Amino acid sequence: MSTIVSVDTTDIRFPTSLQLDGSDAMNPDPDYSAAYITIGTDSDDGLAGHAFVFTIGRGNDVEVAALDALRGHLLGQDVEALLDDMGAAWRLLAHDSQLRWLGPEKGVMHMAIGAALDALWDLKAKRAGLPLWRLLSRMSPEQIVDLVDFRYLSDALTRDEALEILRAAEPGRIEREAELLAVGYPAYTTTPGWLGYSDEKLERLCREAVADGFPQIKLKVGADVDDDRRRLAIARAAVGPGFPIAIDANQRWDVADAIAWVNALAEYDVAWIEEPTSPDDILGHAAIARGVAPIRVATGEHVQNRVVFKQLLQAGGMHVMQIDATRVGGVNENIANLLLAAKFGIPVCPHAGGVGLCEAVQHLSMFDFVAVSGSMEGRMIEFVDHLHEHFTTPAVVEHGRYLVPEAPGAGTEMHAASIAEYTWRGIRVGEVPA
Amino acid sequence: MSTIVSVDTTDIRFPTSLQLDGSDAMNPDPDYSAAYITIGTDSDDGLAGHAFVFTIGRGNDVEVAALDALRGHLLGQDVEALLDDMGAAWRLLAHDSQLRWLGPEKGVMHMAIGAALDALWDLKAKRAGLPLWRLLSRMSPEQIVDLVDFRYLSDALTRDEALEILRAAEPGRIEREAELLAVGYPAYTTTPGWLGYSDEKLERLCREAVADGFPQIKLKVGADVDDDRRRLAIARAAVGPGFPIAIDANQRWDVADAIAWVNALAEYDVAWIEEPTSPDDILGHAAIARGVAPIRVATGEHVQNRVVFKQLLQAGGMHVMQIDATRVGGVNENIANLLLAAKFGIPVCPHAGGVGLCEAVQHLSMFDFVAVSGSMEGRMIEFVDHLHEHFTTPAVVEHGRYLVPEAPGAGTEMHAASIAEYTWRGIRVGEVPA
Repeated sequence: MSTIVSVDTTDIRFPTSLQLDGSDAMNPDPDYSAAYITIGTDSDDGLAGHAFVFTIGRGNDVEVAALDALRGHLLGQDVEALLDDMGAAWRLLAHDSQLRWLGPEKGVMHMAIGAALDALWDLKAKRAGLPLWRLLSRMSPEQIVDLVDFRYLSDALTRDEALEILRAAEPGRIEREAELLAVGYPAYTTTPGWLGYSDEKLERLCREAVADGFPQIKLKVGADVDDDRRRLAIARAAVGPGFPIAIDANQRWDVADAIAWVNALAEYDVAWIEEPTSPDDILGHAAIARGVAPIRVATGEHVQNRVVFKQLLQAGGMHVMQIDATRVGGVNENIANLLLAAKFGIPVCPHAGGVGLCEAVQHLSMFDFVAVSGSMEGRMIEFVDHLHEHFTTPAVVEHGRYLVPEAPGAGTEMHAASIAEYTWRGIRVGEVPA
Repeated sequence: MSTIVSVDTTDIRFPTSLQLDGSDAMNPDPDYSAAYITIGTDSDDGLAGHAFVFTIGRGNDVEVAALDALRGHLLGQDVEALLDDMGAAWRLLAHDSQLRWLGPEKGVMHMAIGAALDALWDLKAKRAGLPLWRLLSRMSPEQIVDLVDFRYLSDALTRDEALEILRAAEPGRIEREAELLAVGYPAYTTTPGWLGYSDEKLERLCREAVADGFPQIKLKVGADVDDDRRRLAIARAAVGPGFPIAIDANQRWDVADAIAWVNALAEYDVAWIEEPTSPDDILGHAAIARGVAPIRVATGEHVQNRVVFKQLLQAGGMHVMQIDATRVGGVNENIANLLLAAKFGIPVCPHAGGVGLCEAVQHLSMFDFVAVSGSMEGRMIEFVDHLHEHFTTPAVVEHGRYLVPEAPGAGTEMHAASIAEYTWRGIRVGEVPA
């Protein structure tokens, strides 16, 4: 038996706004950041669990405070008991009635609970000597549904229906694991499409993306419709006809604006419109989906929890589910999201980029392929090529596909040197203190 | 000209769980708390703005951290410029692109932004020498709509439609203000109905509520259906036939459970069912509304922002809007909510109780009566009779009606002695430190 003896948190910020990496219509100058948590035990194995919430700068300290608020729940816990029943671990944190008032199940507190759970998943996978995707893929259907909180889902997905989905995928698990190892998992790239880039850089990066083997690119839109048309024309010319170009408005529009704007870009052959409006606006997404058909609507990076995903599916407001590794209540809630997508027959194409989102979310897509949806058809994980070097097991994308991570863990551990170098000290890099 | 020179925050917690005040099906042992903010200036008038976010204990420190994260936005601001354009003050805080990532517009960060705005409203009202409800009621329709962020609302409520609503109410303002001063604003009481109370206490408090002149009582339900039937029978016998009894499940059920459970209680003549399921489940509320008709569905104390209120109205999932003073982005966003309710012809019956929620939200209902809906028909503010003594201008309810507050300010200032006594020091009152 071992016990949790330390819960360390760190405010880590990268000065990405200096390069305009990550600029879009709603986020002009993000400083990609991580509220980082490390859970240590008194076991002789020396293993710790690491995870984080991704933020874009200011407020990362608030997220760290939320992680700190969980210390009392975690310190002194029996590690084996906790890791053996990760459904109970979810309930320990997500069902705390006082903390729940701060959401419920949304925003700063919910994301912190997700990171705490993910740190436990990282520890559990390391103890098992398995990458998280494989650990999950080897659990039985019953063990997997026990991880999921079906509260508020039962009008769309019951425990029994989830079991059916998982059992149906069980026979092919071994073959699919072999296929995954052989070919990897499809990636698409957002690298060319940030709003802050020049036309020349956009064109060059579009060509490079095709040459690199990516099956799709994505462009940020929504600041100015004429600029968007010019940039889409450049991108379309660079990649050629038929090559999928998705567009992403980062919540910029109201419903009517979204429909008009997207239709004004339709001639450039758009693969999907992502985050056309508020991530809270389920009915708005449904109205937009009807108004821009046959262009598909994608959303999810800001969808707060499984209850909103459920409704987006029920309402026909989402054709592509873009789960995010650190927006919801951790691996547990993202398994609920994968099961919802499978139930409704919708592909999951995770949001990634940021800090460590590629590293983390690839495990969920690979688990989905092996044990849930059983398919890579129409599915791919976003890839943005920066900040990977700060992780001990960086995501590797070659020829437009994520290579399968083999190292034990959830992919969420950062190098100690990176943590030390980028720990926030209240002064933005490049600024002179007053 | 004056400048903001201080932003002080305090973690205030009352040990309410010792008495089981406030116990319900989801919140068995709340410690009513306030993350409190005071905005000070260098003006000779010596006035400060005070406001808070209500929480129920653990995590109040996270909410304080979120208030602290706004200090840099507020310190050094020109007070007059900020108070003269409170729409711009909203944008300064709510549109910060980096902080927005932590929501957007929901949870810990959004509630903190609401409290910061409300502290400015408190200061603005004190400088004007007016209670907040009267300050708002004397603004022109154009000034009022300038406070509202119509982003994501325009498919349900445009600026022009809001102007029409306010202009239609303009002619009767003076008469309604006189009526309000003469008769007060209706209150209903939740005091009898907490789950932790004995049957004897329930019955006694029900009789007292009727004797005190309250036009409605509310009972917590959702832990056990047989208990609920027994308690409703006791309450119905105590108050007599025809007297309105609302019930409140505090998000306890899934959709099918809610419909079955509420229908099992229907024979006791239920005025409304409050929070039957997740506050995020718009489509679920609509399904429940259809399934329990003609019993009305009420919700709002956990509705995160105007976008979710909009959809509850669009979907027919809410017959009574229960705004909360500290859940959304402050007075500004609650004005959006009042306008949405007026557009859809739905009564607003605010959530109150907690710490200071009665004191704060009464200003919004009174403003609604004078300048927005122009009606008290079917409208009342929740009242729970505890913790009022900690406020400098406590809410006063007599014969089932809120008396009109006349003191300058937003009602959100606590006594310095209360703040000092209940400042959280990390040890629960009644507990012995280890």
